[in-house]
Amino acid sequence: MRDNLDAVFSPKSIAVIGASRKKYGVGREILHNLILGGFNGRIYPVNPNATDVHSIKAYPSVMDIPDEVDLGIVVVPAEKALKVVEECGKKGVKGLVVITAGFREIGGEGLEREKKLRELINQYGMRMIGPNCMGIINTDPDVNMDATFAPTMPLKGNIGLISHSGALGAAILDHAENIKVGFSKFASLGNRTDVSSNDLLMMMEDDPQTDVVLMYIESFGNPRNFTKIVRRITRKMPVIALKSGRTEAGSRAALSHTGALAGLDVATDALFEQCGVIRVQSIEELFDYGSAFSMQPLPKGKKVAILTNAGGPGIMAVDACVYFGLEVSKLSKTTVKVLEEHLPREASKSNPIDMIADAGAKRYEVALEALLKDENVDAAIVINVPPVMIDEHEIAKAIVSVSKKYDKPVLTCFLARGESSPGFMELVGNSIPSYLFPENAVKSLHAMVRYKEYREREKGEVRAFDVDKNKVKEILGKVKSEGRDRLWDDETYEVLGAYGFPVARFERADNLEDAVKAAARIGYPVVLKVISRDVVHKTDFGAVVLNIGNEIELRGQFSKLRGEMKARKVKIDGLLIQEMVGKGKEVIMGMNLDPKFGPILMFGLGGVYAEVLKDVSFRLVPLTDFDSMRMIKSIKSYSLLEGVRGEEPSDIDSVAEMLQRLAQLVTDFLEIKELDINPLLVFEKGQSSRVVDARIILG
Amino acid sequence: MRDNLDAVFSPKSIAVIGASRKKYGVGREILHNLILGGFNGRIYPVNPNATDVHSIKAYPSVMDIPDEVDLGIVVVPAEKALKVVEECGKKGVKGLVVITAGFREIGGEGLEREKKLRELINQYGMRMIGPNCMGIINTDPDVNMDATFAPTMPLKGNIGLISHSGALGAAILDHAENIKVGFSKFASLGNRTDVSSNDLLMMMEDDPQTDVVLMYIESFGNPRNFTKIVRRITRKMPVIALKSGRTEAGSRAALSHTGALAGLDVATDALFEQCGVIRVQSIEELFDYGSAFSMQPLPKGKKVAILTNAGGPGIMAVDACVYFGLEVSKLSKTTVKVLEEHLPREASKSNPIDMIADAGAKRYEVALEALLKDENVDAAIVINVPPVMIDEHEIAKAIVSVSKKYDKPVLTCFLARGESSPGFMELVGNSIPSYLFPENAVKSLHAMVRYKEYREREKGEVRAFDVDKNKVKEILGKVKSEGRDRLWDDETYEVLGAYGFPVARFERADNLEDAVKAAARIGYPVVLKVISRDVVHKTDFGAVVLNIGNEIELRGQFSKLRGEMKARKVKIDGLLIQEMVGKGKEVIMGMNLDPKFGPILMFGLGGVYAEVLKDVSFRLVPLTDFDSMRMIKSIKSYSLLEGVRGEEPSDIDSVAEMLQRLAQLVTDFLEIKELDINPLLVFEKGQSSRVVDARIILG
Repeated sequence: MRDNLDAVFSPKSIAVIGASRKKYGVGREILHNLILGGFNGRIYPVNPNATDVHSIKAYPSVMDIPDEVDLGIVVVPAEKALKVVEECGKKGVKGLVVITAGFREIGGEGLEREKKLRELINQYGMRMIGPNCMGIINTDPDVNMDATFAPTMPLKGNIGLISHSGALGAAILDHAENIKVGFSKFASLGNRTDVSSNDLLMMMEDDPQTDVVLMYIESFGNPRNFTKIVRRITRKMPVIALKSGRTEAGSRAALSHTGALAGLDVATDALFEQCGVIRVQSIEELFDYGSAFSMQPLPKGKKVAILTNAGGPGIMAVDACVYFGLEVSKLSKTTVKVLEEHLPREASKSNPIDMIADAGAKRYEVALEALLKDENVDAAIVINVPPVMIDEHEIAKAIVSVSKKYDKPVLTCFLARGESSPGFMELVGNSIPSYLFPENAVKSLHAMVRYKEYREREKGEVRAFDVDKNKVKEILGKVKSEGRDRLWDDETYEVLGAYGFPVARFERADNLEDAVKAAARIGYPVVLKVISRDVVHKTDFGAVVLNIGNEIELRGQFSKLRGEMKARKVKIDGLLIQEMVGKGKEVIMGMNLDPKFGPILMFGLGGVYAEVLKDVSFRLVPLTDFDSMRMIKSIKSYSLLEGVRGEEPSDIDSVAEMLQRLAQLVTDFLEIKELDINPLLVFEKGQSSRVVDARIILG
Repeated sequence: MRDNLDAVFSPKSIAVIGASRKKYGVGREILHNLILGGFNGRIYPVNPNATDVHSIKAYPSVMDIPDEVDLGIVVVPAEKALKVVEECGKKGVKGLVVITAGFREIGGEGLEREKKLRELINQYGMRMIGPNCMGIINTDPDVNMDATFAPTMPLKGNIGLISHSGALGAAILDHAENIKVGFSKFASLGNRTDVSSNDLLMMMEDDPQTDVVLMYIESFGNPRNFTKIVRRITRKMPVIALKSGRTEAGSRAALSHTGALAGLDVATDALFEQCGVIRVQSIEELFDYGSAFSMQPLPKGKKVAILTNAGGPGIMAVDACVYFGLEVSKLSKTTVKVLEEHLPREASKSNPIDMIADAGAKRYEVALEALLKDENVDAAIVINVPPVMIDEHEIAKAIVSVSKKYDKPVLTCFLARGESSPGFMELVGNSIPSYLFPENAVKSLHAMVRYKEYREREKGEVRAFDVDKNKVKEILGKVKSEGRDRLWDDETYEVLGAYGFPVARFERADNLEDAVKAAARIGYPVVLKVISRDVVHKTDFGAVVLNIGNEIELRGQFSKLRGEMKARKVKIDGLLIQEMVGKGKEVIMGMNLDPKFGPILMFGLGGVYAEVLKDVSFRLVPLTDFDSMRMIKSIKSYSLLEGVRGEEPSDIDSVAEMLQRLAQLVTDFLEIKELDINPLLVFEKGQSSRVVDARIILG
């Protein structure tokens, strides 16, 4: 029962508790929308001060309703909400939508109220949307429920919409109606005290009416769960998400708005990238992409034909294609021949095809058909600059009729034509997305191509390496038992070694004589490092001497170091003698534990690239082999690892493996709060890599 | 007379030559638009086969018109155009708009026809827009001329619009009418055989009705002239430009479309950057920015207040502000106090100010007034999510009335509200730009802030260094007289030295013994380079030996080099002994001569930064001292020159000076086709820099 949202989204009977007689009151508006929407079931207004509301018999309380009630919609003031919810529980109501505000989002007494609300929900085993939300919609003809106070009932369609903001949700529905985009389900989630985005996603996954999911997200409740669910769903249908609170200042606003801690934005980007969620940056993009995905099939590839009746917008579409990495198709000879036969002399028969200003429906029909038949064309962008003398409606009809015959996406731009123009209505009414400007069409097509590539790419697998988990457990146990949060260098290397990292040979020594013996065992040249609780960044501090060639040098360097440390009042806790590793490319990998997202992995090239140019990439666990490779390839300086100016390529496979081993380590030991391997020296392809310095801090 | 466009844009009498009786014929439509637009003068239809057109007496030819004709609009078929134009010349017509197509753009006979057209124009001293254009508009009430065949007469406003594409121009006018953006002048320029964008810009510069210029550019006719003109205009009014044909594939389309060679895109970016032209990437941005600039004053700074009745869109506006580098204002105590007095408890009184869903006109009025009064606020973004129960028209009126009292920009977003909503109409009708989504408002405000910064920043000056021009003339003369296009190394260094570049000490030697003597004079360590007509990239080729410590080494290295060169069949034309320069940061600067744009300068850090990561910047000449500094600072790796991780900063002033000297050199000698200084070694601040290797190629 806890998992089933049927009572919420497909009720047979609804009580509107707090249905007021006041026009424009929220309760009355919801009742009004339910009736006008043609809800396929019974509605019971509940109002202790009225015998009927909106011409329907009203009951003083939900307890007084003589029949079963599946869904209760709560619109009473905050002070009365708990009582009403308890009555619903007693009555056996299974689903609730609590519109009422005045809970967690106002702080103080609201926090306590929300806690009690949660307890009631759990006690009676109800499922609840809200509180502090603007309602839900199900356009399934078997249900036909508009349980919102939004001014517009959306068109029926195949998009499921989940919004963390009621206001934004309403505005989206409003705009969608203007541009004729239809929805299957809508939910404004409010405080998400019970039903979460994750629950909604799972419902939409199984909903035969939903083909595309749009989300407006302000913060993640349980990103790790979200990851699991959404990874599965995006393999079946596109999930397009607008996540606000990107920036620090934005996050602060999100905090005060929903009372939820907004996640780190790099974590969000990583999550979306790994899970195939299509991130948009604006409401406009949400719509642009939403209409493309909901109306058209995915393209097989990225070769685009551009058909236009004016040069300028054609060039702009080409510009956008090239910018986004789409290919402007080279047309087959057959296609060119057809175009030459049917288009006037002045027309351009190579892509972009410019049929010149007086192109009518017939020209559009013949040309589009030729293009969609062409094997070199995966998708078509059709542009029309509405001319004075040609009937754009006829052109739209021609595009619709040809497009229906082929399983290739067709996106249109009737330049600068608004939502009431007959061409626009004809196109969108027949599932051909139509944009005001060519760039929007191209951008949306690009999103489809990217999603198609995501669907086709290997899922990758999370490899489980054979590691010595017990040894790490033992070391971390010892560190904790000694009340430390930082591991000594030798412990750090042992932990990494236990997880299969190739670590430069090392020995810890307590004094110079031991160090001399260790160096003899390891073999010169060696590196001498000072181990000290007072020093975190050894190299910056000058606590490292590289490339010591023999014992005399070692003794000399030691006494010099000891003098310096003494002068700077730094306690020497020990010495570390390390093998001097040969030349390689420096890379950095690390991990930061986020309280919500869990381990966030980082990768970059060492030296100035990561630290100065901030050229790094982030990913979350679980990290597949495929993820690790994309993580490496996504930095801008990646080509330096491939080898430039005649250099040999580096052992990228080894780096990828280390990232996966790192993921395994930090997943196994969530007490690790921070981990830095800096640098990992990477050798030529096939020659592996070596950890030269690292640091582990526990939480 | 040649410079005055009065006859074209402010005629007292117009002949429409080719005015047809056929409804929807182009000639008839133009006549129709002129009449309906209320043209403030006389119109004469010319048609040999009709005695009247559109109820106006028609004449068989322009010669038969009994009165003076200022402007002739030519709509006859291409074959008749030349005859008609000649008649206009004979008649004394001063201005022409040639709509007729079939000239350069169709190639073949069209080329010849255009040539003859130009000759006629010159012969009779007429000014002509077109051919192959869609006409011009002047909304000045004294003129009121809609001489286009576009379906919509634009609203009167303060925007001048110049379009290289007629179709796009028409679509822009169409859309502008929908969103209530008004124009002062419009011109579709067609083939630009006589009147160019530059002419139009100069006209708009002096036009009291024009405050903002929008341009749609497909290619530059004379970018060097454009630079001069537009640098001047952007100091007075914003010029916002959409330039298509960005990408290679796009350029090809531009070529076939307008028959003009599209410029290099880096050159366009450089030109716009240096001249303060605001480049937009889409038609949508053109409009978004156009309405902001045309309706609102420029902000004094970048501190933004965000006022909203819903959290979600407020967060999105903050996100966008932070993304674009605008500041979310910290409000003064007074402001917060006012907000606390007038807003409900649940409202958020810190920026973004969320007045919650039931905020009506009064709340908007009080809050906006408090914000605009606040010294910490330079601009306001006002967001409204149209609620069910509140009158958005009243809210719009409140915003208008408060905004009028303050000289600070106010941009609004009535979320997802279309162009017919009463709020939108009220706002835009009163010069408050209103956007569908918050991101568009913020982006437009950001463009205003950037432009304001441009207006305030120093113009900079083009420094004229004291150089030895004659010496360079002599060297280049010698190179040319010897039939070479590449300068020898020693010549290259001499040229650079003559223009004040600090060049590493060098001597050319013809044989080993001379080289040994030269090395002794220069002082060891030295660098040995092979001079050879067969080798362009010496280091890659292995024709350079660094850090030679003494004569024995020099002799050894020479014989080794000679052996290698012989084995690779490379002729040794000479030897170069160079001072071994100490350590510094490697930078690259260079120049490529573009046939249209002139010298294009390049700058970047040496090593992988320029060559592998493509982190370089481009500028055009003339290069001011200010430009040179921005050029250096605009590369991503700039911080490396400032010094990272405790390094001393490099001598950036010296680099800036060298860029200006380079600009002077390549401006003085346009026969230099390519020039590379790679590397220039830059020392610590105050220690100057040194040219270590360079290459000059003549065109």
